[in-house]
Amino acid sequence: MKALQYRTIGAAPEVVTVPDPEPGPGQVLLKVSAAGVCHSDIAVMSWPAESFPYALPLTLGHEGAGTVAALGDGVSGLKEGDPVAVYGPWGCGLCAKCAEGKENYCLRADELGIRPPGLGAPGAMAEYLIVDDARHLVPLDGLDPVAAVPLTDAGLTPYHAIKRALPKLLPGSTAVVIGTGGLGHVAIQLLRAMTAARVIALDVNEDKLALARSVGAHESVLSDAGAAAKVRELTGGIGAQAVFDFVGAEPTVRTAGALAAVEGEISIVGIGGGALPVGFGALPFEVSVHAPYWGSRGELIEVLDLARTGAVSVHTETYSLDEAPLAYERLHAGKVNGRAVILPNG
Amino acid sequence: MKALQYRTIGAAPEVVTVPDPEPGPGQVLLKVSAAGVCHSDIAVMSWPAESFPYALPLTLGHEGAGTVAALGDGVSGLKEGDPVAVYGPWGCGLCAKCAEGKENYCLRADELGIRPPGLGAPGAMAEYLIVDDARHLVPLDGLDPVAAVPLTDAGLTPYHAIKRALPKLLPGSTAVVIGTGGLGHVAIQLLRAMTAARVIALDVNEDKLALARSVGAHESVLSDAGAAAKVRELTGGIGAQAVFDFVGAEPTVRTAGALAAVEGEISIVGIGGGALPVGFGALPFEVSVHAPYWGSRGELIEVLDLARTGAVSVHTETYSLDEAPLAYERLHAGKVNGRAVILPNG
Amino acid sequence: MKALQYRTIGAAPEVVTVPDPEPGPGQVLLKVSAAGVCHSDIAVMSWPAESFPYALPLTLGHEGAGTVAALGDGVSGLKEGDPVAVYGPWGCGLCAKCAEGKENYCLRADELGIRPPGLGAPGAMAEYLIVDDARHLVPLDGLDPVAAVPLTDAGLTPYHAIKRALPKLLPGSTAVVIGTGGLGHVAIQLLRAMTAARVIALDVNEDKLALARSVGAHESVLSDAGAAAKVRELTGGIGAQAVFDFVGAEPTVRTAGALAAVEGEISIVGIGGGALPVGFGALPFEVSVHAPYWGSRGELIEVLDLARTGAVSVHTETYSLDEAPLAYERLHAGKVNGRAVILPNG
Amino acid sequence: MKALQYRTIGAAPEVVTVPDPEPGPGQVLLKVSAAGVCHSDIAVMSWPAESFPYALPLTLGHEGAGTVAALGDGVSGLKEGDPVAVYGPWGCGLCAKCAEGKENYCLRADELGIRPPGLGAPGAMAEYLIVDDARHLVPLDGLDPVAAVPLTDAGLTPYHAIKRALPKLLPGSTAVVIGTGGLGHVAIQLLRAMTAARVIALDVNEDKLALARSVGAHESVLSDAGAAAKVRELTGGIGAQAVFDFVGAEPTVRTAGALAAVEGEISIVGIGGGALPVGFGALPFEVSVHAPYWGSRGELIEVLDLARTGAVSVHTETYSLDEAPLAYERLHAGKVNGRAVILPNG
Repeated sequence: MKALQYRTIGAAPEVVTVPDPEPGPGQVLLKVSAAGVCHSDIAVMSWPAESFPYALPLTLGHEGAGTVAALGDGVSGLKEGDPVAVYGPWGCGLCAKCAEGKENYCLRADELGIRPPGLGAPGAMAEYLIVDDARHLVPLDGLDPVAAVPLTDAGLTPYHAIKRALPKLLPGSTAVVIGTGGLGHVAIQLLRAMTAARVIALDVNEDKLALARSVGAHESVLSDAGAAAKVRELTGGIGAQAVFDFVGAEPTVRTAGALAAVEGEISIVGIGGGALPVGFGALPFEVSVHAPYWGSRGELIEVLDLARTGAVSVHTETYSLDEAPLAYERLHAGKVNGRAVILPNG
Repeated sequence: MKALQYRTIGAAPEVVTVPDPEPGPGQVLLKVSAAGVCHSDIAVMSWPAESFPYALPLTLGHEGAGTVAALGDGVSGLKEGDPVAVYGPWGCGLCAKCAEGKENYCLRADELGIRPPGLGAPGAMAEYLIVDDARHLVPLDGLDPVAAVPLTDAGLTPYHAIKRALPKLLPGSTAVVIGTGGLGHVAIQLLRAMTAARVIALDVNEDKLALARSVGAHESVLSDAGAAAKVRELTGGIGAQAVFDFVGAEPTVRTAGALAAVEGEISIVGIGGGALPVGFGALPFEVSVHAPYWGSRGELIEVLDLARTGAVSVHTETYSLDEAPLAYERLHAGKVNGRAVILPNG
Repeated sequence: MKALQYRTIGAAPEVVTVPDPEPGPGQVLLKVSAAGVCHSDIAVMSWPAESFPYALPLTLGHEGAGTVAALGDGVSGLKEGDPVAVYGPWGCGLCAKCAEGKENYCLRADELGIRPPGLGAPGAMAEYLIVDDARHLVPLDGLDPVAAVPLTDAGLTPYHAIKRALPKLLPGSTAVVIGTGGLGHVAIQLLRAMTAARVIALDVNEDKLALARSVGAHESVLSDAGAAAKVRELTGGIGAQAVFDFVGAEPTVRTAGALAAVEGEISIVGIGGGALPVGFGALPFEVSVHAPYWGSRGELIEVLDLARTGAVSVHTETYSLDEAPLAYERLHAGKVNGRAVILPNG
Repeated sequence: MKALQYRTIGAAPEVVTVPDPEPGPGQVLLKVSAAGVCHSDIAVMSWPAESFPYALPLTLGHEGAGTVAALGDGVSGLKEGDPVAVYGPWGCGLCAKCAEGKENYCLRADELGIRPPGLGAPGAMAEYLIVDDARHLVPLDGLDPVAAVPLTDAGLTPYHAIKRALPKLLPGSTAVVIGTGGLGHVAIQLLRAMTAARVIALDVNEDKLALARSVGAHESVLSDAGAAAKVRELTGGIGAQAVFDFVGAEPTVRTAGALAAVEGEISIVGIGGGALPVGFGALPFEVSVHAPYWGSRGELIEVLDLARTGAVSVHTETYSLDEAPLAYERLHAGKVNGRAVILPNG
């Protein structure tokens, strides 16, 4: 079959032919309908050889959706032809975190060498994908695979962060979304659907802010040195009860800290390398700061349930597998509008 | 001043002249702008003399809004002319429940003889009202007193029940509202504003269901013997994760039990005298049933914050204080459309 | 191999020889070290033929512990010889509840015919047990299998109920345990280890109350018509913030309702056929009542972790497999002191 | 009356005579039985004139207990002679935080110039104390004022931090207490009473660690560069689910970050000037870091309830009001064993 692989440190990914995979006991073979192109792949492909954590060649694609093509021995609960989405952050399935479906926080994945598809294990940018266990698949149940596939990461990641903050997002509260791109513009939709909070979007230019307002932000503020003061003004001096930073760079985490309310929650989702110092006097009282990673199995089910109501949608542009290298080029150049999705069998 | 009083067991309330009240230390005198007419007043006025719990005459009105007319000694944080809404379920202010603002569950109110205005203490259906402490007032802050006054009970009560159920009302879940009248039609609006749950309304005729849909119910079902089966069908057999019964009669609590999902939450808000038996095998696993009462101080602040966003509104019809007896007659006869509001100084 | 089977409705269980089981793909063969004898087995064996839900013959035993004897194809994370406890309430592994490890509340188990071992599937009272998936095993990690095996039900079930009530069990609160036998005397130990609540035990005679005090109850009260008044007296009139009824008969659920505090939580765990009516005025404000079933995968891990600290222990008496019918006789006659445990390979 | 005042920047506090205070409407006059000497007073007295936030002279003492000596007009719920403890972090009583009893996080205290006694308002180190409202008093109800007074800060502050972390402190979890002095040694007792977590204490010398073990720490570790590795070793590599840093200096917050488990909670309570940077990759996944301040009204009630069970106690040494300057000297010199308590009327 054909697959998009990252083969040489620093080189562009290539479409190559690899052996057709076959499912072992407990595994599921998926005929891939759609695979999402994610900024974090570009980050991975920028890492130097000495610290590169995965074996090469690496078939890319950690967002995947497809139809069940074959079941390994002992698999139940699925049948050939079922359309499904892939839960990506695979864990051991047995530890205390996995027992609650938080495989993104598996206590033993590192030790056991378990990796997500496309981030260590062969990914979804291929005609077929081996999924290690039926529990890592969620029925699409009527969702279009192209529309749904970005939700497995770009939807699940902000959903997880927002769900954690729900007790803070009561009527009268304010949620700030910093960075309104792939994940951020989904976050705005999630916040509007799931809470009565006022949503304020921050980004670096008016085009992005217009998009933020079009997907539901009540207010939009240019993300510059005056942003925190503007948010305080908009909130009568109180600040935001929840802040979701999808950039995570030094300036944005500082802004996040400066605009948070007493007892507020700051989620640093972006991997921009920034870090916000927390200590007595550094932030308003009891502002809580953390950096989450992806989401749980149950949360992916919830995100897809929400998508079925029409409350959240991602703008996508599609590419064939042969065009996948082009998709990465365009993403790198900032030319992708919304999310690029590869159709390996399209 | 003029006041509407319930003076004789079984008789209609009358407008009478009573001495002008003066605020003692710590108290606040309110010039009443609006007072809500509530079904529970009619229930109170139907109680027999031998079990009537309050002294007569009783000035009615447990939903009130007005402007500060005078401050007793030692009152701070308010000034004359401030427009405010009254938090009705007064407590002692000192016990463990009151320390968290849950004065509706005050541990000492009975023992100390503390009663809500209109339900023991002189109520809001008078030109002036004595409020026992500034903490029982919330700034209207731009809200119209007529539109806001029903929210102090008909808004706060469903809000409290819904807030408790929020962890169950995630995407993919279903909320059922039984009884779409005064409290129920506010509940539908609250659920739509605060959650991504699907909202199913149950009531006894198509007119009421049409109203329910107009304020946001996704589905509406006739509340008869087949209602629970219909809700199970609409939810793929799962049932509802949260049920709010604003009738609380035997048939509705049975329906609530029959349509609840595993781990679901049933809130019996209505005082219709029904009771749902809970035990192993009686309901789906871990369905939790309770009957709440009104709400907390913090929750009233949140309800009014939500009202300011325009997300919740109550249809009102207004009456002068002299017309107040007529308002009760019309309510009793089922002729009030939405909520009747008295304007004692209007 | 030898197995204890319930073969004929109404008859006593018998030790018979059955074919040795072999693990299919994904399954695990366990050499059983210990299997718990539970009251609910006696309830099952009292059901009439027309409503008996399982196929006969039925190998008993829903509490099991053993060592891994063989792994089916595709099983990872375990190896031969590993000592493990069995998580009993098996589910589909894929639905929204199972995705969070709440297999006790699996949404599809009924539809798919999935049953716990000993309660439909062949149980642990045999030399060998087939476990359908590695996720249903928790490492004993130093625990004695005889001491640990009752914790898989008689420990997990009260643990689940108590964990739900933890937010109510703050300092100053009171927990009441009704019925201090198998589950109840574990509940008392769990409450003492996990909370600062005052624990009051209720049971029908002084011997049982002495046992309750010996495992940590602060107070003990005879469970009669005056019990609720006694608990109110002990709590300054407030009542109990959490009530765990391990009997679940009409008199005990009434007592539970009569002694609960405002906003209290009542867990009816016992299957004694009682049901407590909930409605406005029926109980103190917002007392919440539910009937749980067993517990989640994550909770079993936590219970065994707690057992490793020495904070919870169950008195056991052991029997060979051949003596298993005798153990049931003695349990039925009320002669078992603590928990009877069968050693099928002992 | 006599009072201990801080009168001149940089000078030691002095015992002076000031006019006897009288309670205004709504206020309560307390005859002070005990006032706690706190490290933070020493911090306050080290601040330079240009940034000193309070007016001088300042009567010290933010931990107070006494008996009601007189009631201002309009005060109810208390009577002369009642023994009470003072809730110190006074707020406006009306804002959204105060409505939930979180006066420590009052949204308007700064704007309105409201200050805690001893930290802006006249404090408890005087024969009499004016308390601005009855809601700031909690009945001692049998507690000894000397033993109880440190709990109003040194008990309430760790209690608040621990209560927030309770959902993380399930069986199998580990709590780390850094700094086992005034607040830390109370924290260890609270953790043991309220949770089944393993408690590991960190401090800089063996004497302090011996004290930590004597009040209940399961393990103790020298707080040096190897401390985090030792805690990881003790927890099988997992780390601590909750970390309470009562020092809050650069080295301790770094240690806290290095020993936290995935999804762990770090509470930086100490005012040692350290700050822990939080961002993607900086700490294990979703470790949450915050710096709390004091506690709520409801939490003080809970702390005193816990003290009544005997589960928490503070070693105290007592001084007359005239000896109060000496107490501060000894505290500054590290010579106080436990908590110094002043007896202004002793």
